[in-house]
Amino acid sequence: MKNPNTLTVSLVTIGDELLIGQTIDTNSAWMAKELNHIGASVKRRVAIGDNWDDIWNCLQKEGEAADVVLITGGLGPTSDDITKPLLCKFFGGKMTTDKAALENVIDIFTKKLNRPLLDRNLWQADVPDNCTVLQNKRGTAPGMWFEKDNTIYVSMPGVPHEMKGMMQDDVLPILKDRFMLHAIQHRTLLTAGIGESFLAEILVEFEQELPQHIKLAYLPSYGMVRLRLTTSEQNAAQGEIKLEFDKLKKLVGDYLVIDQDLSLQETVSNILKSSKKTLSIAESCTGGYISHLITLIPGSSTFFLGSVVSYSNEMKVEILDVPSEIINQHGAVSLETVAKMAEGIRRKTGSDYALATSGIMGPEGGTEQKTLGHVCVAVSSAQTTTTTTFDFRFDRKRNIELTAVHALNFLRKNIG
Amino acid sequence: MKNPNTLTVSLVTIGDELLIGQTIDTNSAWMAKELNHIGASVKRRVAIGDNWDDIWNCLQKEGEAADVVLITGGLGPTSDDITKPLLCKFFGGKMTTDKAALENVIDIFTKKLNRPLLDRNLWQADVPDNCTVLQNKRGTAPGMWFEKDNTIYVSMPGVPHEMKGMMQDDVLPILKDRFMLHAIQHRTLLTAGIGESFLAEILVEFEQELPQHIKLAYLPSYGMVRLRLTTSEQNAAQGEIKLEFDKLKKLVGDYLVIDQDLSLQETVSNILKSSKKTLSIAESCTGGYISHLITLIPGSSTFFLGSVVSYSNEMKVEILDVPSEIINQHGAVSLETVAKMAEGIRRKTGSDYALATSGIMGPEGGTEQKTLGHVCVAVSSAQTTTTTTFDFRFDRKRNIELTAVHALNFLRKNIG
Repeated sequence: MKNPNTLTVSLVTIGDELLIGQTIDTNSAWMAKELNHIGASVKRRVAIGDNWDDIWNCLQKEGEAADVVLITGGLGPTSDDITKPLLCKFFGGKMTTDKAALENVIDIFTKKLNRPLLDRNLWQADVPDNCTVLQNKRGTAPGMWFEKDNTIYVSMPGVPHEMKGMMQDDVLPILKDRFMLHAIQHRTLLTAGIGESFLAEILVEFEQELPQHIKLAYLPSYGMVRLRLTTSEQNAAQGEIKLEFDKLKKLVGDYLVIDQDLSLQETVSNILKSSKKTLSIAESCTGGYISHLITLIPGSSTFFLGSVVSYSNEMKVEILDVPSEIINQHGAVSLETVAKMAEGIRRKTGSDYALATSGIMGPEGGTEQKTLGHVCVAVSSAQTTTTTTFDFRFDRKRNIELTAVHALNFLRKNIG
Repeated sequence: MKNPNTLTVSLVTIGDELLIGQTIDTNSAWMAKELNHIGASVKRRVAIGDNWDDIWNCLQKEGEAADVVLITGGLGPTSDDITKPLLCKFFGGKMTTDKAALENVIDIFTKKLNRPLLDRNLWQADVPDNCTVLQNKRGTAPGMWFEKDNTIYVSMPGVPHEMKGMMQDDVLPILKDRFMLHAIQHRTLLTAGIGESFLAEILVEFEQELPQHIKLAYLPSYGMVRLRLTTSEQNAAQGEIKLEFDKLKKLVGDYLVIDQDLSLQETVSNILKSSKKTLSIAESCTGGYISHLITLIPGSSTFFLGSVVSYSNEMKVEILDVPSEIINQHGAVSLETVAKMAEGIRRKTGSDYALATSGIMGPEGGTEQKTLGHVCVAVSSAQTTTTTTFDFRFDRKRNIELTAVHALNFLRKNIG
């Protein structure tokens, strides 16, 4: 290791699509999280195009700076994918067919895809003779592990689930095995209802007294702030991080949403599961996004009965039994309507709790009384129906996301 | 410019959260797209942590390689944000309070947030005296424009909507104004039902005969492949790219979904809008995700009436009027049930078309007959109900996304 205390990693992503904005890079975040978890430290993430000189220079520079260079992308079967021949030349090898990789390609095409096998598919089994091949159990392009001048280089396909599989099956276990890494430990809590700078004021003394090897980070997102303490496992073993985390929780007080690194939908899901209560949702302005967040959670069918996306007023009346007078008198975006929506879906589904949203997400539809970004939210239970309003001031997509997060937080408070 | 023909850009993102995987970087993709649009060429994207030496070295290296270095992040009010003092030292300036930025901070806190103003908020208005200040109309941290050794450096806040506003208001117009850029032109089409390597076989000759200044890229995603031709505006003006794009369309034939760079939901939305038809959806396995994709489109309320996320069988029976015998006999995941779901939601909402999905997304629920990833889809109109099945083999999230895309494509085929 270039630095005896930490294994440093550079993440290199290859592909023109990243430089013209066609693709959002979700691979790097996942890789960083997993590497962090085993105690490796990502120092840089670099994205470059399918260009020979750019790739070559990048590998050289990143290799000088980091212990491990993890490369994704550029291994496809088409002519714009030049990464493999470049790697072969960079490490001074010769191309050779890997038998296991070839069997894998043949297997995928004949058994799984049931398609004729083309030459360009067979070429996917060719690899430089000076690499260790990482077999791809989820696709045709094999991974390649090189070592040069005390640096490890691993090339993986850019397809997310293929890369993830290869990291989990091979790369992470090998790195963990070979280097004695101290896993980095994080303790994270989520706050709501207080801005970043006000939190910082509350935590001035805490930060000053924090031991040097424990770091505090502020991670704001969607109008909430996550606070994270970080240290290495060694220190954590001494109970120090627990101690500091408890202090932090006390200082944050009522602003605390949850003292784990969980999303709001996971938090809500855990509460409902453990109390064996069920949920239904009536979404107007969020258009199905809250239901999507809930149903992304495996096993959500144990507590989530379903929802109605009542985009039209007719649906509010016909399916959710909102009295049309209520809509006529108060409007579709009103506390009165959203309360009836929540009560309606709860009655229809027989759920213990119901959440409802109605608002103006933009870019059009705002009025003087009800401005763009105005949202009404209701939570209904057998005992009572509670409502609230929010006002956001962003674009349609962000307004929808903010509404979802704050509606879920309102639900959490009313089912706690 | 370091190269007289193109304005090259490096994107630098600063923040520990990017290196531990807490945040997915969506800023870079947006910036790349916009820069590309005005004819600037993004060569590299680099993400680094809140570390003095790493930032310093990165600015030095990126400044040597590119004409413009666009920096985001690290400008927050808390102690882990060190970018501003570093920039001040890097460019040899002194900190000074910017009057307009200060007024902006005071305005936001007193008028918009109605919160007391802290010292750390006032500091946000301090800037190095050798930069041009870009006022932030959406937040408290101002942008900073520096020039050194023939390179432009711009520092912007990392909050997406603040960065986007500053790019649109200032950075993009100034760059466009100052450099005579030839806008890069893309022509993109979307194909479905054919793999990347088979497309490449069809296009072997086309690729060989393609003029050097026109590039063809394969962009696979969600089991479909986008094909993109790229050239500069100069060549495009000669009609060459149009000619080549027409050839490409012919070669692709029936695999063509749409000859524009549109998503499937946009394609479906355009068809429905122009034919003045309405849509409703019954989602089981996709849990609201298709409705979310549709309602992200501004103005979708003109054709989208709403949907029912019938996660429980009771909801399928009670709200969508699926006969319970059908579910008992064929199961919730069956062509029979999904057809009844589509017909039910269409009748209930009175829409012209209805789409319905039911499937097994995992990680649990697969059986020998109906394996994990098995999906049934139906489209119903006044004339007929058509069904189909798909089989995916990924994780829950990706299975949901794939189902949504392929269901939308099935809908497109049946409303065309």
